[in-house]
Amino acid sequence: MSGSSYGQIYKLTTFGESHGVAIGGVIEGFPSNCPIDIERIQMALDQRRPGQNQLVSPRKEADKVSFISGIFEGRSTGSPIAFIIENTDQHSKDYTALKDVFRPSHADYTYQQKYGIRDHRGGGRSSARETACRVVAGALAAQVLDQLGVKSSCYVDQIGPYQLSEQNWYELDQIENSPLRCPETTISDQMQEYVSDLQKDGDTTGGAIRALIKGVPAGWGEPVFDKLHAELGKAMLSINAVKGFEFGSGFAAVSMKGSAHNDQFNADGSTQTNFSGGIQGGISNGMPISFRVAFKPVASIKIPQATLQQNGELKQHAIEGRHDACVVPRAVPIVSAMANIVLLDFYLRQQRNTLFS
Amino acid sequence: MSGSSYGQIYKLTTFGESHGVAIGGVIEGFPSNCPIDIERIQMALDQRRPGQNQLVSPRKEADKVSFISGIFEGRSTGSPIAFIIENTDQHSKDYTALKDVFRPSHADYTYQQKYGIRDHRGGGRSSARETACRVVAGALAAQVLDQLGVKSSCYVDQIGPYQLSEQNWYELDQIENSPLRCPETTISDQMQEYVSDLQKDGDTTGGAIRALIKGVPAGWGEPVFDKLHAELGKAMLSINAVKGFEFGSGFAAVSMKGSAHNDQFNADGSTQTNFSGGIQGGISNGMPISFRVAFKPVASIKIPQATLQQNGELKQHAIEGRHDACVVPRAVPIVSAMANIVLLDFYLRQQRNTLFS
Amino acid sequence: MSGSSYGQIYKLTTFGESHGVAIGGVIEGFPSNCPIDIERIQMALDQRRPGQNQLVSPRKEADKVSFISGIFEGRSTGSPIAFIIENTDQHSKDYTALKDVFRPSHADYTYQQKYGIRDHRGGGRSSARETACRVVAGALAAQVLDQLGVKSSCYVDQIGPYQLSEQNWYELDQIENSPLRCPETTISDQMQEYVSDLQKDGDTTGGAIRALIKGVPAGWGEPVFDKLHAELGKAMLSINAVKGFEFGSGFAAVSMKGSAHNDQFNADGSTQTNFSGGIQGGISNGMPISFRVAFKPVASIKIPQATLQQNGELKQHAIEGRHDACVVPRAVPIVSAMANIVLLDFYLRQQRNTLFS
Amino acid sequence: MSGSSYGQIYKLTTFGESHGVAIGGVIEGFPSNCPIDIERIQMALDQRRPGQNQLVSPRKEADKVSFISGIFEGRSTGSPIAFIIENTDQHSKDYTALKDVFRPSHADYTYQQKYGIRDHRGGGRSSARETACRVVAGALAAQVLDQLGVKSSCYVDQIGPYQLSEQNWYELDQIENSPLRCPETTISDQMQEYVSDLQKDGDTTGGAIRALIKGVPAGWGEPVFDKLHAELGKAMLSINAVKGFEFGSGFAAVSMKGSAHNDQFNADGSTQTNFSGGIQGGISNGMPISFRVAFKPVASIKIPQATLQQNGELKQHAIEGRHDACVVPRAVPIVSAMANIVLLDFYLRQQRNTLFS
Repeated sequence: MSGSSYGQIYKLTTFGESHGVAIGGVIEGFPSNCPIDIERIQMALDQRRPGQNQLVSPRKEADKVSFISGIFEGRSTGSPIAFIIENTDQHSKDYTALKDVFRPSHADYTYQQKYGIRDHRGGGRSSARETACRVVAGALAAQVLDQLGVKSSCYVDQIGPYQLSEQNWYELDQIENSPLRCPETTISDQMQEYVSDLQKDGDTTGGAIRALIKGVPAGWGEPVFDKLHAELGKAMLSINAVKGFEFGSGFAAVSMKGSAHNDQFNADGSTQTNFSGGIQGGISNGMPISFRVAFKPVASIKIPQATLQQNGELKQHAIEGRHDACVVPRAVPIVSAMANIVLLDFYLRQQRNTLFS
Repeated sequence: MSGSSYGQIYKLTTFGESHGVAIGGVIEGFPSNCPIDIERIQMALDQRRPGQNQLVSPRKEADKVSFISGIFEGRSTGSPIAFIIENTDQHSKDYTALKDVFRPSHADYTYQQKYGIRDHRGGGRSSARETACRVVAGALAAQVLDQLGVKSSCYVDQIGPYQLSEQNWYELDQIENSPLRCPETTISDQMQEYVSDLQKDGDTTGGAIRALIKGVPAGWGEPVFDKLHAELGKAMLSINAVKGFEFGSGFAAVSMKGSAHNDQFNADGSTQTNFSGGIQGGISNGMPISFRVAFKPVASIKIPQATLQQNGELKQHAIEGRHDACVVPRAVPIVSAMANIVLLDFYLRQQRNTLFS
Repeated sequence: MSGSSYGQIYKLTTFGESHGVAIGGVIEGFPSNCPIDIERIQMALDQRRPGQNQLVSPRKEADKVSFISGIFEGRSTGSPIAFIIENTDQHSKDYTALKDVFRPSHADYTYQQKYGIRDHRGGGRSSARETACRVVAGALAAQVLDQLGVKSSCYVDQIGPYQLSEQNWYELDQIENSPLRCPETTISDQMQEYVSDLQKDGDTTGGAIRALIKGVPAGWGEPVFDKLHAELGKAMLSINAVKGFEFGSGFAAVSMKGSAHNDQFNADGSTQTNFSGGIQGGISNGMPISFRVAFKPVASIKIPQATLQQNGELKQHAIEGRHDACVVPRAVPIVSAMANIVLLDFYLRQQRNTLFS
Repeated sequence: MSGSSYGQIYKLTTFGESHGVAIGGVIEGFPSNCPIDIERIQMALDQRRPGQNQLVSPRKEADKVSFISGIFEGRSTGSPIAFIIENTDQHSKDYTALKDVFRPSHADYTYQQKYGIRDHRGGGRSSARETACRVVAGALAAQVLDQLGVKSSCYVDQIGPYQLSEQNWYELDQIENSPLRCPETTISDQMQEYVSDLQKDGDTTGGAIRALIKGVPAGWGEPVFDKLHAELGKAMLSINAVKGFEFGSGFAAVSMKGSAHNDQFNADGSTQTNFSGGIQGGISNGMPISFRVAFKPVASIKIPQATLQQNGELKQHAIEGRHDACVVPRAVPIVSAMANIVLLDFYLRQQRNTLFS
C-alpha cells in the first residue's frame, strides 16, 4: 500500500533515503535451499554504480551489499532475505542550498505536497539511488532464472537523436564493451560525443533501452489485469525518469494493418513473426519477449531555471553537484533487474496450476 | 493473484466468459452512503457496446447491468457492489469451427498452454467483452471523482496513418459527435474512409487514444513502485490489444535535452510547460495528467492465415463472425474507466496521510 | 481491504445481503482442469440451510447455487468461478419494525456507526446468511483436498452444559445421524431436550464445535505471522457468533507443565502425544490437526430487552421472526468449509517451495 | 505471502534469525509528519528483553534498536521505517549439539520438512526473538493511538493453576511492579514461588494474558472476514507458544443463554454488560475491548525427552542453554504490541469511509 513493495510471491520491499545511513531491502518468496552467489549480485550492483567512467556521476559509492538474513551456509533458507547498502559518500552539504527549494522536474514539490514533510537531501526517498536495491533483488532472481534457461539482453537503443536501426540479441560483453552500453560501435561513438558535448554545456539528454528475453516457456503471466506485459510495463514505468513503455510492435502497431501484424503460426507453436513480443493475451507464448523503455533527460542541469522556493517565490537556480549527463547507460542493469523480478514472480505464480495437468 | 482483480482500496474483481451465462464483477472499497446514479453507469456501458454503428461489430448485446448488492435505497452501503451483465446474443455456433484451432495473435494458444484447458467460445475469458465490467466500475468511480472536481477527456488520437496534430481538451459531445470518437472532423472523416475500406478487404487497423485529466490535486500517487503513471500504465496495458503507453513527453523525451524538457515553475506551483504529464516522482503535481495508449489492429481478419490446430497441423484459415475493423473507438470508454478506477484508488490511498498535517 | 475476501492464492470474495436479490461469491485461484462435482457442493449447502428440522430456523431458503463462470464442460478453467444463491424466502416485512431499532448484541448499531447507513432487513450484510457462500467455496476446496487425502471430522462438541467427554474421529454419517450434529447419542438426546426447552422460552444457547483433520502432510503453513493455526483461528473467528478458538491443548495448556505438554517423538517423525494439535511453529507436522470453536448464544430472543432506537430512546423489545434456538449445528458445515478454504490455500502456497528440494 | 508481513495499511515486515547478524523490520503506512519518541520504543523493547530478572532467560541482549530510514529530524516522512536490532549475545555453540536434532514441540522438524533446510542455531527464524521487531512496530503505533485516546492494559492473568478471579483495568506501574506482570500481589507471589520451583526442576509452565483496551470509538474493524476480533485473534495466535484466543465472554459463552448473554443498551449507545468484548459483527461498538490469550509451557526443558535425530534415530535428550521457566510475563509487551498494530491498521482502514458522512 505504501508503494515500496513489488511482486506477489517473489516480493521486494525497499527502504532508505539517498543521504540517510543506508538503503536496503527485504526479499520474500525466494525459493529455499537455492545456492546463492553473492559475488554475482555485487557485480550487477557495480554495473549500476556511479563513478564508472567520466560520462556518469562521479559520486563514489562503494555500493557494497551486506546480507543480514535468509542465507545460511551459502543457501537460501526460505526466510526473508534482508540486505543493506551503506551510504558512504553522501555530500549532504551539496543539498543544504536546496533545503527550501523545489527543483524543476524533480519530486521535491510533490513529496512536500503529499506528505507535508520531506527529506530534502539528494532527493531523499525519490532518489534513483533506491534502484540499487532493485538490482540486488534482480540479480538474485537471475540465479533461479538461469537454471530455468531464461536469459536477457538489455542495452541502450537510443540516446538523443542516435538510435540503433534494428533490434538484435547482444551478449553481455558486447554491451559492456561500450561505456554507454550501446553495442554497435559506430552509434556508440556518436552517442559518446553527443553526451560529452552536453556535459560541457551542463545539459542532459534522454535515451531508450531495449530488452530481449529468451527462454520463457509458454504459460507465464496472468490474464485480464495482471498480464505479463502490463506488469513489465508497471515495473519499467516505476524506474526513475521513465516516460514510456512499448512491447512487441509497440507504438508502430498503431499504423499497421491486421494482415501485416498478425503472427502466423509454425507447426511447432512458434510464430513466423513476433509483433506480439512473445506475449498473447497477457501470457507468454514461448517466443522471445521484447520491449523498449523511454527515459527523459536528467532533470539536474547546470543551467539556471525558474525554481520555486518554499516561501512561494521563484528564483533562477542552476543545480550543482555530481550528476549524469545521461543516466540511461546506468539504467540498463535496473531494467534488467526489474524484468528478472517480474519474471521470477510470474514463474512462481504459475507453479500452482499444474495439479490436474 | 489470479489476475482478475485491480486496485488496492477501490478494487474491482471481474468474472465471466464471452459466451457463458453472464459476465460481471464485484467492487470493493467504494465509499459508503454515496448516492448512485445507475443510469449514468448504463450510459457508459452503451458507449462501449457493440453494434453502435456500421463501423463496429454488429453483435447485438444489450449490455444491461443489474446490481445485486451493496446499494440500498439508492445509496452505497459500504458493502461489496456486485453486478451482472447477461450474455444475450452469443453466437457460440460461430465458434464451433474454432474448437480445435489456435487463431494467430489471439490468446487461444497461450490459455491452452497455461491452463491445459480453455473455453474456446469467442475467446472465453480472454475476450474483450470482459472490459464491459471495467466500464461499470469506472463509471461508478466517476461519480466520486466528479464531486472532487476531477474530469477527463479521452478520444481517438490516431487510426492507421491519420493522427491529430496536437493534444487538446475536448468535451464529451465533441468526441461523441464522431463515430470514431476522433473530435476533429477532417481527420475523423479520413479515418472513416480508411476503416471502411479495410472493412471491405476483411482487414483491420491499429490506433491510439489520448487521455487528459484535469482537477487532480497535487499528492495523489505513491512513490517508488506504485507511481501514479506506473499504475496508469499497468491499467492501460491490461486492456486487450494495447501495445504501448507513454505519459507527458513520452517517447519524444528520448531525443530531448534537459534544458528543453524541464518544467520550470510558476509562483503558484504550476509549471510553464507540462512535459511531466502532471506527475513528478510518481505523484501528481496539480497539472493536467496526460497519456497516450497504442492499440494493435484487431487480430480477427477475414483473410486466410497460417493457423495452428490442436493436432499440431497448420491450416490456412479465414476468421468469420462479427468483428470490428477498428476497435479503438470502442476502447475510449474503457481507457476512461481504467483511468477513473486508478484515480479513485489513489485518492482513497491518500486519505490516510492527513493525520499530522 | 473491505473485509469481504479471504485467502491468498485460493481466494473467496463474497457479496450480498440477507434480503437483497441474491448472495454470491467469486472464487479465484482454484486449480484449472479439475473435474467439478456440483451436486456435492449443493449437498454441503443443504447441510447449512435453514428449515432442516424443528430445532432450527424455519426460513425456507432453497439455497440453490448457480455457477456463472469458470467451469466449462464440467471442469475448472482456471478463471474466476462466480456463483449466485438467490434469496427466495425473504420476509422483509418482518424487519420493517426493526428499521429504526438497534437490536442488542447484533451488528445493527456498529454498521450504522461505521458506514453512516445500513440495510436493516435481516441484518443485511452482517447476516449469517453470508456464510452459505463460504460453504460453496469450502465444498469446492474439498474436491481438491480429497485427492490429496485430506479429510475432516467436524461435529458439535458442546451445547449449553452438555459436552462430550473426549475428542474422537467420527464419520460424516455418525454426525449427520444427530439432528444437532453431536455424534454421541446420549449427549445428543440431552442437548435436544435442552434446546427444545429453550425454544419454548424464546431463549437461546451457545455451543462449541470440534474439528479434526487427517492427512495434512508436514510442511503446510507459513512461519511468523501466517501460521497455520493463526489463519485457522482468523477463519473461525470470522464466522458469525464465534467467541473463541483453541487448537491442540488450547486453554488447558495454561495450567500444564512443559514435561507433560511436550510431544515426544516416534522414530517416524510422528509424536507420542498431540498437544501441538498437528502444528509446530505454525507449520503442520503430519499429525492430525485439532481445534475447537466457541459460539455465543443466538442474539435474537423472543424475550423483551432494552433496545436502542435510532432516535436515541430505549424501548423494551422482543424479537419476532424465524430464528434458531441454537445455531451451532448449522455452523458445522461452515467450520468445515472455512477449514477447507484455509487448507487448500496453504497447500497452494506451499507449491512454490519445491524447486531446489 | 511468505508469512513475514502483518497488516494492510499499517504493515510490518520482519526479518532475521535468532543467531544471525541482526533481526529487524520494515514498517510501512505510518502516518507522515508525526513526531517520533524513540526512547519510548526502546522502553517497550526493554520490557520484552531477556535477563530482566532471575525468573527469565539470562541471555543478555541489549536489544538496542537502530532506525535506518523513514525518520527525518525527529518526524516520520511517510517513507518506510526500517530498523535493526543486532544480535550481540548469541551463544551459537550452545546449539551445535542441536544441529542434527529435532527438539520435541519446537519447530525444528516442521521447518526442515517445509524448506528442506534450516538454520538450526537457536531456532533460527522460528525463535521468539523475532517478536522484538513486533514490539518496535507496536510501540510506534502506540504513539498515534495515544493521540486518539486509545489505551491498553495487558497483564498476566494466570500461570499454571494460579489465576486472577476477575478482569480489571490496571495501570502500567501496577503491572510492572510484579516481576511476573501479574498486578495482584497475593497471586503474583504464589506464581513466583510456583515458577521458581519449576525452574529448579528444569521444568516450565503455561500461562495466560488478559488485555483490555479503552478509547476505541465505534466503527473500527471490517465486516465478514476481517472482523476486528478475527484479526486480533490471528495477531495473538501468531505469537510463539500461543494455543488459544477468546474475546468478551469467550469460551464461557458456550454454556450461556441468550437472555443472559445479550448486552442490553443504555440510551447513549453503551451497553449494560460487555459480553461482546467491545465488538459487534466484527466492528468496535465503543465499549472496552477485552480478550485473553493462552500460552503453552516453554518447550525447552532440562529433562530428557524422546528427541528425533536427522538420521531417523531417537535419543533421550535434555535441552541446555538459557531458557525461561515461564515466558508469559515477557509476552505481555508482545500482546500489547500486536494489539496496537491491529488497532492502528483498522483506524487507518476506516479513514476512507468518511467522504459522504
